[in-house]
Amino acid sequence: MDIATLRQRHPDHWMKACAIRTLTLDAVAAANSGHSGMPMGMADVATVLFEKHLRFDPSAPRWPDRDRFILSAGHGSMLIYSLLYLTGYEDMTLEQIRNFRQWGAITAGHPEYGHVTGVETTTGPLGQGIANAVGFAMAEESLRAHWGKKLQDHHTWVIAGDGCLMEGVSQEALGLAGKQQLSRLIVLWDNNGITIDGKVSLSDITDQKARFAASGWDVFECDGHDPEDIDRALSAAKASPRPAFVDCKTHIALGSSAQDTSKGHGALTDAKLIADTKSAYGWDHAAFEIPAAIKAQWEAMGERGLAARKDWEARLAALSEGKRGEFERIFRAEAPAKLASAIRAVKKQAVADMPKLATRAASEKVLAAVNPVMRETIGGSADLTGSNNTKTPDLGVFTPEDRKGRYVYYGIREHGMAAAMNGMALHGGIRPYGGTFMCFTDYARPSMRLSALMGLPVTYVMTHDSIGLGEDGPTHQPVEHLAISRATPNMLVIRPADMVEVAEAWEIALSSQKTPAVLALSRQNLPAVRKTHSNRNMVSMGAYVLEEAGAKRQAILMATGSEVEIALKARDLLEAEGIGTRVVSMPCWELFEEQPDAWRRKVLPPGPVRVAVEAGVRMGWDRWLCGEGGRRDKAGFVGMEGFGASAPADRLYREFGITAEAVAAKAKALLGL
Amino acid sequence: MDIATLRQRHPDHWMKACAIRTLTLDAVAAANSGHSGMPMGMADVATVLFEKHLRFDPSAPRWPDRDRFILSAGHGSMLIYSLLYLTGYEDMTLEQIRNFRQWGAITAGHPEYGHVTGVETTTGPLGQGIANAVGFAMAEESLRAHWGKKLQDHHTWVIAGDGCLMEGVSQEALGLAGKQQLSRLIVLWDNNGITIDGKVSLSDITDQKARFAASGWDVFECDGHDPEDIDRALSAAKASPRPAFVDCKTHIALGSSAQDTSKGHGALTDAKLIADTKSAYGWDHAAFEIPAAIKAQWEAMGERGLAARKDWEARLAALSEGKRGEFERIFRAEAPAKLASAIRAVKKQAVADMPKLATRAASEKVLAAVNPVMRETIGGSADLTGSNNTKTPDLGVFTPEDRKGRYVYYGIREHGMAAAMNGMALHGGIRPYGGTFMCFTDYARPSMRLSALMGLPVTYVMTHDSIGLGEDGPTHQPVEHLAISRATPNMLVIRPADMVEVAEAWEIALSSQKTPAVLALSRQNLPAVRKTHSNRNMVSMGAYVLEEAGAKRQAILMATGSEVEIALKARDLLEAEGIGTRVVSMPCWELFEEQPDAWRRKVLPPGPVRVAVEAGVRMGWDRWLCGEGGRRDKAGFVGMEGFGASAPADRLYREFGITAEAVAAKAKALLGL
Repeated sequence: MDIATLRQRHPDHWMKACAIRTLTLDAVAAANSGHSGMPMGMADVATVLFEKHLRFDPSAPRWPDRDRFILSAGHGSMLIYSLLYLTGYEDMTLEQIRNFRQWGAITAGHPEYGHVTGVETTTGPLGQGIANAVGFAMAEESLRAHWGKKLQDHHTWVIAGDGCLMEGVSQEALGLAGKQQLSRLIVLWDNNGITIDGKVSLSDITDQKARFAASGWDVFECDGHDPEDIDRALSAAKASPRPAFVDCKTHIALGSSAQDTSKGHGALTDAKLIADTKSAYGWDHAAFEIPAAIKAQWEAMGERGLAARKDWEARLAALSEGKRGEFERIFRAEAPAKLASAIRAVKKQAVADMPKLATRAASEKVLAAVNPVMRETIGGSADLTGSNNTKTPDLGVFTPEDRKGRYVYYGIREHGMAAAMNGMALHGGIRPYGGTFMCFTDYARPSMRLSALMGLPVTYVMTHDSIGLGEDGPTHQPVEHLAISRATPNMLVIRPADMVEVAEAWEIALSSQKTPAVLALSRQNLPAVRKTHSNRNMVSMGAYVLEEAGAKRQAILMATGSEVEIALKARDLLEAEGIGTRVVSMPCWELFEEQPDAWRRKVLPPGPVRVAVEAGVRMGWDRWLCGEGGRRDKAGFVGMEGFGASAPADRLYREFGITAEAVAAKAKALLGL
Repeated sequence: MDIATLRQRHPDHWMKACAIRTLTLDAVAAANSGHSGMPMGMADVATVLFEKHLRFDPSAPRWPDRDRFILSAGHGSMLIYSLLYLTGYEDMTLEQIRNFRQWGAITAGHPEYGHVTGVETTTGPLGQGIANAVGFAMAEESLRAHWGKKLQDHHTWVIAGDGCLMEGVSQEALGLAGKQQLSRLIVLWDNNGITIDGKVSLSDITDQKARFAASGWDVFECDGHDPEDIDRALSAAKASPRPAFVDCKTHIALGSSAQDTSKGHGALTDAKLIADTKSAYGWDHAAFEIPAAIKAQWEAMGERGLAARKDWEARLAALSEGKRGEFERIFRAEAPAKLASAIRAVKKQAVADMPKLATRAASEKVLAAVNPVMRETIGGSADLTGSNNTKTPDLGVFTPEDRKGRYVYYGIREHGMAAAMNGMALHGGIRPYGGTFMCFTDYARPSMRLSALMGLPVTYVMTHDSIGLGEDGPTHQPVEHLAISRATPNMLVIRPADMVEVAEAWEIALSSQKTPAVLALSRQNLPAVRKTHSNRNMVSMGAYVLEEAGAKRQAILMATGSEVEIALKARDLLEAEGIGTRVVSMPCWELFEEQPDAWRRKVLPPGPVRVAVEAGVRMGWDRWLCGEGGRRDKAGFVGMEGFGASAPADRLYREFGITAEAVAAKAKALLGL
């Protein structure tokens, strides 16, 4: 259909959709930057979605039973900003749209979660939104099973482009969704045939419908500019018992001279092009001006959800106080009061038993104590359940047949798992954790960064955290991965040394509301190093004195996780020679950095030589070796300088020189002894 | 078919295949670690492949026209070690197999490139092998187009399991291969229905054949234990004009009590299980014993390629000396003599012109000078060609219609691109480079790590390397990514400041034979900072004095890339106040670390206060702030503490306080002024 026909057949719809298109053109022109073509191409689909299907209430943007709308193709951010402004989200003012992409505006280049109500997840890195959406839909299924349809009964809608579908993570997401038969998940494909480099066919010939169908999705298609056809397809997709993929055939930058070209993907800022396009639309209003009648029609869409939301609130209010409090608590991502006592009990028992245990096994024991008192947890692993120790007996398995199950077999999909966990945390009501080998942080990395950027309390259970992994060899042995996670802002990297520290680490992770945690856990058994019980969570201090010097203090040994044992043995060697040696356990640098200067000085006083030992690269350690009055020429590091090797773990530690003897020797050399 | 029938129908084949199976059982039992089931399941397919199809010569394992055999399911390493031992690769002795997974043995837990001849690529991290294979097949197509079938005319064979196919990177790989119609690529799917956590159906219901077909592959299937059926399918796959996917229906851990179970995936070490299995096989030889007759049959397979290889060598010898030299040079990954003069010319011109240019644009100019003299380069981008500036006019485009084209439109597939580049570098004869935004190092990360681990001279052109990216906002602004790449062993991270440094960076990257390079390039324009020509490659020193103090030296400012300009301006401010200030450009830490102590001391003498400025996180900088006699209390850092924001670049630098004024103020504060 040409534009004239579209205008003529559905004049009301046309003008509503053109409100999106012209706001986009105006905002991008004002910013002299952005992406015009995608909102222009998907305006019709979005209009029908918001008008006829989406369950939402702009006056209550955090309503827990709203439909979730995810713009996976985040570069088209003016689409969602326009929708939020037009339907009447309070924070999305015209002023914000005028300041698109400017300092201090909430209208960032890509939609940022937490900046804008109505933006459910940060998108832009392609493929993330569609993979988050799988988590949203899983969260809804889980909560519906637990709380009933009265409280949770909604859909997750995604707009995805070719970029999202070419990214590998999309395959992980669609595979997981297909297996899980997530019938409330609907992906609308902006099938415009264009990427930045040119036509999609330059790089891909995939039949996307066949691809989704191959993984158990129902597939639909529509003319993405015909509102009746769109409505029909969306209705059918919503009715499908499986996840639904809707091929929306669209024209990028519709109606402009850049239509159907890669030029149309970017910023259309030429004044004449904009004027000509608006003229073709039959739109003769000033820049950023939306006629009152059109704005009113949009706001009416926003009002559609009001009654449903009020009904829902009445149902929530009708719950017992305890149940309502619980529902509200989990949506605040607040730990239950019982967590502290459960952790305390584990710690006491650990001090009594002093188990020699891999920290991954200790983690399973902690989870076994915690999962029953935090029913909002959903655990899982990327096909390493027995190795990551992530499954506890009470969880059950989340399947299409049992939505009450709380354990997810994610398959060999680290990236999809991380993205789905982000989606669950974003949905609210669920606290996800998931495991893989620490080395495969690499695979999950793009989504882990987004956990941090969005401030989501997701817990990454990363086991086999060093050469201690042994025979699987260097491809599976993390060396730089602690540094990678520590380099990432707003991420707690916790490497506990024994069961007590593991319990404390979990307490921190499960209490966090705005920060993801990476728990780096050993494959190999470790002795107990915390031998007296303290109610205080020492890991929360970041670092602390585990063992004070016996003789006059001449050396401080710092270590994390499995190397704390080595530091303690090195201390024994040094003390035997009369060299007073303090051992500092440093399970979490980020928390140590947050402590008052006085605490850091107390733990790391100037004067003694310092040796750090960690079975990873040195990067970052100079902060602690040289800070708080330390000196690089009086400090040493025992760790890895390159990749690992394949052999039993003990042998590797010996061959790479990560031993108590090496640590003691380094300290003595620094002391000139 | 049951085992008895298989034995009876094809007794010769059966015993050959059982040689693989029993070596696997024995080696895993000896190591008490490893993966037994996969080699036991795929032994029949591998036997037929090596006996009837694979073009190889164990006496010349680096023969450039051999077929490439890639075990993407690298955990099944005993499959390839058995094959190499049985067919007679000199380094794969029985002693090595007995020492499976032990320190010093070449039989690492997962196959490691460079340890073992016949191992074409390091696998283990799932999905990598199949994605490398796409690069191998592209390299073969490109070289065949350039050198003719006489010199390049072979296939790439891959064995992949469900793990490989569930990883997202497999979708990027198969999408690229489908579009490129890589008819010499054949993937053999070990379809055993089992993963570590249990049945594949726990996590996936994908119809893999339909999925591959959706992206333009031809699909085949066979009974993976019937040698005739395997042979038929492999022949058909080889004849296909498209990439071929062969569904080999197999039984994991065939013939053992762990057959068809996830237990069979891991290490089968129980003595009775092993004895019973061997008995079911009709195999009654001692552990590690291969009867001479069976070994001879295997060695005969290895001898099949000998004549072909000798013919090939005659054809190579018949080339003119110049052509032969060129062919051999590119397979040694050696830069041509002309590179140095081309770079020199660019540097001279740059000093003459002093262009104000983004380093990504400077990079394009360097490539325009270099690509014509290094015809082994293949460039590309993950759908950011215009932004990464990776395409030069002479390259043409690599397509099914034009295999002489040297530019690849990888699509939105950063991970697949990186893995394919690894494959091209591994194949030999090609020097790949490819671009994306620096922030999306995250997506490519698993393959980038493997570039480093394998020691492959791949060049990553990472543009938009800081908040200087501007309006696209924090999802697209790298902050921790320089630290991530620097934390990785054996990776050169080069962040040049102007066109001269860009030229020097490219000279280093293109001359490297064993180390990948990450070029971090700016989006924004930068002034020329190298104002006099020097033939010497200063970037190769890692860091050097760019501007000496005028007044008595009291401060040293260190910077990389786009922040060198800021350091120079800060120097002006400080010198204006009589504070002598040296500016050190530090484009490559790794190379600086490699220099003699004397050079590092010369560049960073103790005494003056030090301020580093880089628009990224501080992690790692303390090495230079505190090393070589520096002191942390006399050192400062100006950079990023968290994620970026969406706004024009200039504004962001101001708001985040990365300015000349801030650098000068920090230096003054450290001087107590």
